[in-house]
Amino acid sequence: NITVNKLDNDGLQRLAKLFPKREEFPARHIGPRDHEQTQMLELLGFRTLDEMTDMAVPAKIRLNKDLEIEEPVGEYELIKRIREIAEKNKIWRSYIGMGYNNCCVPHTIMRNIFENPGWTTQYTPYQPEVAQGRLEGLLNYQTMVTDLTGMEVANASLLDEGTAAAEAMSLCHRHTKRRRLFLSDQLHPQTVSVVQTRADSLGLTVELGNVFAADFSNRDIAGVLFQYPDTGGSVHDYSEVVQRAHSNGTLVCCATDLLALTLLRPPSEFDVDISLGTSQRFGVPLGYGGPHAGFFACRQSLVRLMPGRMIGVTRDASGRDAYRLALQTREQHIRRDKATSNICTAQALLANMSAMYAVYHGPHGLREIATRIHKSALLLSEGVKEGGNTVTNHIFFDTIRINPAMDQGEIQHRARQKQINLRFYPDETVGVSLDETVTIQDIEDLLWVFGSRLSAEEVAGSCDMNEGSIFQSSFRRTSPYLTHPVFNSYHSETRIVRYMKTLENKDVSLVHSMIPLGSCTMKLNSTTEMMPCSFQHFTDIHPFAPLDQSLGYQQLFEELQQDLCAITGYDRISFQPNSGAQGEYAGLSAIKCYHEARSEGHRNICLIPVSAHGTNPASAQMAGMKVEPINVCRDGSIDISHLASKVEKHGKNLACLMITYPSTNGVFEETIADVCHMIHDNGGQVYLDGANMNAQVGLCRPGDYGSDVSHLNLHKTFCIPHGGGGPGMGPIGVKAHLAPFLPTHPVVNPMADMGRHSKSFGVVSAAPFGSSAILPISWAYIKMMGPRGLRKATQVAILNANYMSKRLEGHYKTLFKGQKSSLVAHEFILDVRDFKKTANIEAVDIAKRLMDYGFHAPTMSWPVSGTLMIEPTESEDKQELDRFCDALIYIRQEINEIEEGRMDIRTNPLTMAPHTQARVISNDWNRPYTREQAAFPAPFVHPETKVWPSVGRIDDIYGDKHLVCTCPPILPAY
Amino acid sequence: NITVNKLDNDGLQRLAKLFPKREEFPARHIGPRDHEQTQMLELLGFRTLDEMTDMAVPAKIRLNKDLEIEEPVGEYELIKRIREIAEKNKIWRSYIGMGYNNCCVPHTIMRNIFENPGWTTQYTPYQPEVAQGRLEGLLNYQTMVTDLTGMEVANASLLDEGTAAAEAMSLCHRHTKRRRLFLSDQLHPQTVSVVQTRADSLGLTVELGNVFAADFSNRDIAGVLFQYPDTGGSVHDYSEVVQRAHSNGTLVCCATDLLALTLLRPPSEFDVDISLGTSQRFGVPLGYGGPHAGFFACRQSLVRLMPGRMIGVTRDASGRDAYRLALQTREQHIRRDKATSNICTAQALLANMSAMYAVYHGPHGLREIATRIHKSALLLSEGVKEGGNTVTNHIFFDTIRINPAMDQGEIQHRARQKQINLRFYPDETVGVSLDETVTIQDIEDLLWVFGSRLSAEEVAGSCDMNEGSIFQSSFRRTSPYLTHPVFNSYHSETRIVRYMKTLENKDVSLVHSMIPLGSCTMKLNSTTEMMPCSFQHFTDIHPFAPLDQSLGYQQLFEELQQDLCAITGYDRISFQPNSGAQGEYAGLSAIKCYHEARSEGHRNICLIPVSAHGTNPASAQMAGMKVEPINVCRDGSIDISHLASKVEKHGKNLACLMITYPSTNGVFEETIADVCHMIHDNGGQVYLDGANMNAQVGLCRPGDYGSDVSHLNLHKTFCIPHGGGGPGMGPIGVKAHLAPFLPTHPVVNPMADMGRHSKSFGVVSAAPFGSSAILPISWAYIKMMGPRGLRKATQVAILNANYMSKRLEGHYKTLFKGQKSSLVAHEFILDVRDFKKTANIEAVDIAKRLMDYGFHAPTMSWPVSGTLMIEPTESEDKQELDRFCDALIYIRQEINEIEEGRMDIRTNPLTMAPHTQARVISNDWNRPYTREQAAFPAPFVHPETKVWPSVGRIDDIYGDKHLVCTCPPILPAY
Ligand SMILES: Cc1ncc(COP(=O)(O)O)c(C=O)c1O
Ligand SMILES: Cc1ncc(COP(=O)(O)O)c(C=O)c1O
Ligand SMILES: O=C([O-])O
Repeated sequence: NITVNKLDNDGLQRLAKLFPKREEFPARHIGPRDHEQTQMLELLGFRTLDEMTDMAVPAKIRLNKDLEIEEPVGEYELIKRIREIAEKNKIWRSYIGMGYNNCCVPHTIMRNIFENPGWTTQYTPYQPEVAQGRLEGLLNYQTMVTDLTGMEVANASLLDEGTAAAEAMSLCHRHTKRRRLFLSDQLHPQTVSVVQTRADSLGLTVELGNVFAADFSNRDIAGVLFQYPDTGGSVHDYSEVVQRAHSNGTLVCCATDLLALTLLRPPSEFDVDISLGTSQRFGVPLGYGGPHAGFFACRQSLVRLMPGRMIGVTRDASGRDAYRLALQTREQHIRRDKATSNICTAQALLANMSAMYAVYHGPHGLREIATRIHKSALLLSEGVKEGGNTVTNHIFFDTIRINPAMDQGEIQHRARQKQINLRFYPDETVGVSLDETVTIQDIEDLLWVFGSRLSAEEVAGSCDMNEGSIFQSSFRRTSPYLTHPVFNSYHSETRIVRYMKTLENKDVSLVHSMIPLGSCTMKLNSTTEMMPCSFQHFTDIHPFAPLDQSLGYQQLFEELQQDLCAITGYDRISFQPNSGAQGEYAGLSAIKCYHEARSEGHRNICLIPVSAHGTNPASAQMAGMKVEPINVCRDGSIDISHLASKVEKHGKNLACLMITYPSTNGVFEETIADVCHMIHDNGGQVYLDGANMNAQVGLCRPGDYGSDVSHLNLHKTFCIPHGGGGPGMGPIGVKAHLAPFLPTHPVVNPMADMGRHSKSFGVVSAAPFGSSAILPISWAYIKMMGPRGLRKATQVAILNANYMSKRLEGHYKTLFKGQKSSLVAHEFILDVRDFKKTANIEAVDIAKRLMDYGFHAPTMSWPVSGTLMIEPTESEDKQELDRFCDALIYIRQEINEIEEGRMDIRTNPLTMAPHTQARVISNDWNRPYTREQAAFPAPFVHPETKVWPSVGRIDDIYGDKHLVCTCPPILPAY
Repeated sequence: NITVNKLDNDGLQRLAKLFPKREEFPARHIGPRDHEQTQMLELLGFRTLDEMTDMAVPAKIRLNKDLEIEEPVGEYELIKRIREIAEKNKIWRSYIGMGYNNCCVPHTIMRNIFENPGWTTQYTPYQPEVAQGRLEGLLNYQTMVTDLTGMEVANASLLDEGTAAAEAMSLCHRHTKRRRLFLSDQLHPQTVSVVQTRADSLGLTVELGNVFAADFSNRDIAGVLFQYPDTGGSVHDYSEVVQRAHSNGTLVCCATDLLALTLLRPPSEFDVDISLGTSQRFGVPLGYGGPHAGFFACRQSLVRLMPGRMIGVTRDASGRDAYRLALQTREQHIRRDKATSNICTAQALLANMSAMYAVYHGPHGLREIATRIHKSALLLSEGVKEGGNTVTNHIFFDTIRINPAMDQGEIQHRARQKQINLRFYPDETVGVSLDETVTIQDIEDLLWVFGSRLSAEEVAGSCDMNEGSIFQSSFRRTSPYLTHPVFNSYHSETRIVRYMKTLENKDVSLVHSMIPLGSCTMKLNSTTEMMPCSFQHFTDIHPFAPLDQSLGYQQLFEELQQDLCAITGYDRISFQPNSGAQGEYAGLSAIKCYHEARSEGHRNICLIPVSAHGTNPASAQMAGMKVEPINVCRDGSIDISHLASKVEKHGKNLACLMITYPSTNGVFEETIADVCHMIHDNGGQVYLDGANMNAQVGLCRPGDYGSDVSHLNLHKTFCIPHGGGGPGMGPIGVKAHLAPFLPTHPVVNPMADMGRHSKSFGVVSAAPFGSSAILPISWAYIKMMGPRGLRKATQVAILNANYMSKRLEGHYKTLFKGQKSSLVAHEFILDVRDFKKTANIEAVDIAKRLMDYGFHAPTMSWPVSGTLMIEPTESEDKQELDRFCDALIYIRQEINEIEEGRMDIRTNPLTMAPHTQARVISNDWNRPYTREQAAFPAPFVHPETKVWPSVGRIDDIYGDKHLVCTCPPILPAY
């Protein structure tokens, strides 16, 4: 009884009603259910989210339309789509090398660390009592790096090899105060570029040349950097160079390869001062360039100049060994404009994976892997020689450089037939770099490509493979490494799984409870977002593979760029920066370059509010700008008159204003658009720190209200998990006039589409598109949320913060609120400074006591010393917010008891916090409060679900005095 | 300087030396390192593993050559290979239905449960104090099933819908003592076959027909079974049938669909006695037929006849709510030959996934999903009618049966063009079953296939979708369901992740410590083995898809069959049985059928040693055999003279001997070959229970020394993880003469290759190849271990058991050892019965006290009451074995203190074990031992790594008295 003529125009509408577009994911991502939102809004006196955000966000800057991004995509549809995109990438065998080698990622590490939210969702281990697992993993990493390089100390990772090299050279400069650098011409090209760019910013001179011919006698060279084995694969003895450098006061840096060092004499035996490189090939996929961990090691005497985070061994309140971040003073927010490195988010997760790879294989396993690779290279070398080719390397580990009998073009053609990528040098030679995955068939194919008539078997039968090997050379390693029990205990899968689980279970992560870290946006990292990161077609692509093999990645970049532009109001995105801080440096450099291009190169003043994140002044410094601090008023807002006076004062030299919005104090300042105007009127640019984008997405756009450039911490607003301190991604968005100045790359140029219009300032990362392999996370988040979902997420983030602030009213003081709105943005600061006087309680005591309640502390003492900054994010629901508020209220009552003398001022649950099992189950308990009060201070802290701190309060002073940064003699058995 | 003429024959050898075949996986799988093996052998007085196993395994039966399986494949190569095999399966859209529906597996549940060893590697929750997580999950499952079906009680899963139906019918028979069954002819065909086969075995008569015309008036029908909605999709009102059945004393069973029941009146409202079905479509992939959970629910009055495991709520020692396996007496090893169901391993993991799916979606979400499917079906129905087709269903949920305007062949042709599978009935009608994944495009394609001229949009616009819907019918559901808070609290991903983690962290699994469960082989389940189970090309295949879409699966079956035959000495494998017990039933049925085929159908005596596992007699009973128990001697070996006398007595009626080897007492009996001879000489067959294959692989083969058929618990020896009580797989291997009698299947015949030679006894599972989707695990294990690796694993399993037995010598008595060798096999029994007299300590006290040491107890009171049976497996290393031995030795010292009066006989750490955090941190502690003794009784029990029992000792008696099997009013908040 359906007739076509009955058909009416309602069909589509009815179909849409029958099959409502399920906006299912936003309801999975956003914590509070609708009825909870209503309750919370009620408490705040609003009827709707819109009513609230119309009040919170200044009308002037409000975006009054939907974001121009696609309608939301469902979770299953999304996976189908991203799989199709991924499969546009082609997985060829890559023998390109250049710092990126394929490897066998142990499946059990992949699954139990990389794919496990218990390992990926923790915050940086600033609260060591609930982070001993990761800290132990990172200490293993440092021990691995020091052992293999032979150096005395190492840090817990940097962003990549290129930036590690740049940090090394900058250390040389700082240490020697000299302004010239010498770089070997046998470094990876991207290493040279990154160092060169940084040096340019700082006004240092770089000389590139044959390091054996380097002349240090002028005593003006700060540092020399060479590579071992070098980019072409050759192993050289640098002793003489080092000696000459040292005798002229030049520091010596060596880029090296951890796997090669299992067979080769470590750089320390050449007496180098700094060793650096990447640990990617230790069990981390290629991922089209990242993420993976850069390493950095040096002599003990340089440790206080070493960039990045370092794990140290100290003791806890009961005197037991415990780990923590050592040398906290290095953190930018303390050193501020005296900082010289801006590294903040690093690569903790990947460092942990690499360390676990070493733990799993142990020294023998690693040596076996390296030996196999080395022998393969020897075999290949002998085989290609037979084909009339010349091998230019004398001693090598895994990489050879071949002067081919055929044309390079012909080689290229034959390689393509076998789906093989090689390194083609401009001088017609060809590089081949072997790795852990190499098989006999691979060797056969390579022999064929180079026209050898022999099979691998024939080569093996006819020559002495020891001849020319490292084992018969003076480079043979004789010193032991990885002798610590941790590297010699977990070689069965059963053992390593238990070890990983033991470490995981010591740490608080998002799988346990909210981590309300102000300025860090610890929101849901959903499985659907994470899944594509494990797709082979994303993991197994070499960053320097020909572009027609990375079409999937290019589509991903393009789509994500479009979405991020729609969200921010910018015109172009650079994906090169690997972290927010790198983005700052890149963005400021682009500004600087822009001024220079307009013949205003003298503009070098960067105005930064004193409340800014420490990376801001550090990045400005690195970009060669001069930092001028701007005061903030007592209400936390920028002191406009001080700003005006500075602008006036520096007028002609004003490069830019660097500002965070909403402010680091958690407030939407009404004046932001005016401030941007003022800067532009004076010829300056505005750098808007995007760390707080989570308060803006869908509500306002920096590109609309006057900012010229921002970084976007994709590991905050856009759902890349924190990984316990990285990976992150800090792409920058810019208005069109800055686009030509964005980062380039010496191997794969991300600015190629701009052609002659590109006037890039240089290179900031080793890989052309940074940590490409985690971009699917942010892409997926945006696609699944859609325009309304994203906006709502922002609104709920603001709702959650205001709800908590309101609930805590009467117990704690929220330091700053919007002048007109009396609302906070997506985070707020609790002022707890008074308790010092009334009860001798400090922010740290509250932070530690929160652990007893099962919570990770909020951001401590930043941006205001002695305070706590809470950012709940939209992913936490009302019940969790209430639990956290309740915990704080209980703590307030405990403080009250001290204030009123009912609790001892010295020995009370706060000063003694956190309480470990060892303590509360100890036979002797002589505290003036009970064990239950200590351990189960609230009805919602259940014995059967409580997450315990595994050590007592960390003794920072002891740690600072006794700096130990490798595994201590005996690790506690699991 | 290589010349071809220098080439010598050494090439291959040298290449092999250069690239040694890395047998890397065996060293990952096997726990003890070589030097540890040497130490352990030394303690036992052997120099080599071979020396030891030559002593342990009787010379007569020893296999003195390598297994004829492939050389070991590396972990990375293996994944490549299995991916290629998987991709031979074709993923078409399947609208076949018949009990298997595609669904959207929530990615977060997939990753955090199915792919998480913290959820997959636990043992069955027999030790509830360290299993509250899974128990809560399974209680949620039971609550979900009772709520949706409206029944009073449900169990914690059965193997599949087919066996659930068979169990239901057998319950009817037991309850009514009647011997006739009535089956609706509108059941899924495989349900009919499975029931029919079981009924045949038991000698019950089955009538298949129109259930509305069934005549119960003879009062001889035990039970009637119908389906709601039926196999063709129609929804019928069965009230009148039920009433007639009841008034004639017939029990009523209803196969149903949980998702349909979110919209339809539950079967309880028709007053049925039993509801059953599959919960596959609740978030479990198709997996070519399994694994997934069958459900079973009934009235309270039948609960004590209900098969399978059931979770109950009881209280712990301190009176708090706690979960446990209820009605333990149902377990076969207690009821033995009085048992009527043999179900042991079930589908705990999949039941947990399904329950979590309901928790994640909640009642509203489920209703929304179901509504969407239902509306799609209505739309499709209206659309195809337009094309001149007839829809034969009046009221339906998701499935319609179409009398097409075109030929069926033409429809088939058009469907194939769109890569669509439909159900083609013999009567030329066509079935279409929609599911959660359906999109508008899918509807469009289906409309096209059926030649409708309208688009989905046009259909929607032109008809009233409510007409004919469930909502407008008398079937509309009005009763509430899933009202418990657990189904209404975890709808954001953040919440569900935390809920899953909270449950996970309550349970001891292999990620924490060894689980030395005698007879259960809790060995490593490696990530590489598990990975393929998540491959889309394995998960997304309908079991009844045309064979040319499952070529990958077929290759997998073929390869695994070859390897299992090589390992066991059998000639053919049937993969249909989903568990060991199902394998027993299948194997015995094959034997029975064999005898019948030889006109010896009178042979019905099954000899079973009294020490056998409880499933053995239960299976024999189910296969229609009569069990005759055989005594065992005081040393645990079979009483040969008793056996001989029984053989003589039953001579002509002897069907078979059912025997476990090495014996359930953990001993390689010397006489096994002779025993097999004796049986054969008397016309009997030998069924060898393969549960202990882990002691035999590579050392001896049942097929060689006289066995005719065995099941292989792939979830023991072949690395499928236990999943907390399933999934498992129990394929059977048979000698050639039994091959024709193996299971068949009504839809996809696994015996097709045998053609006319197949004389199958019937069907044992709903799916033709059982739980196909987990077979890659066992396949991978065998491929990666290779012949030498497998043999060595067996040797180390034996070494580990003997080492532990030796270390415990002087502290505990090992009950049985080989007569000649004085060795145990791969497990051993500790006799702790004396302590009852000397210290009032029983096996259970030791088991619970082990929890305080962080360990899961061994098998308790089986096969010998009052003992502990320990099976360490090869995957545990010396350090872990030592820790476990140390724990037992510490416990022995505690017993000693009681014996010597230094510890109180009533209140001591053993009788009070396990100790919870709540207890030891309680303010009042009035025990005569310390808190530290309670909680940290050994130096290796560290506060920071200890795994705690989450409740105190379970009160079984209370639980038996107050049977509660659904979620209690208030669950503890996490
Ligand atoms: C306001 C602000 N700016 C910049 C950064 C630096 O970002 P990243 O850690 O990604 O380098 C942070 C990081 O916490 C921040 O909060
Ligand atoms: C000796 C023996 N036979 C049979 C079985 C039954 O196997 P399933 O649990 O797979 O049904 C078991 C299980 O523990 C067993 O130990
Ligand atoms: O109840 C307990 O003894 O833990």
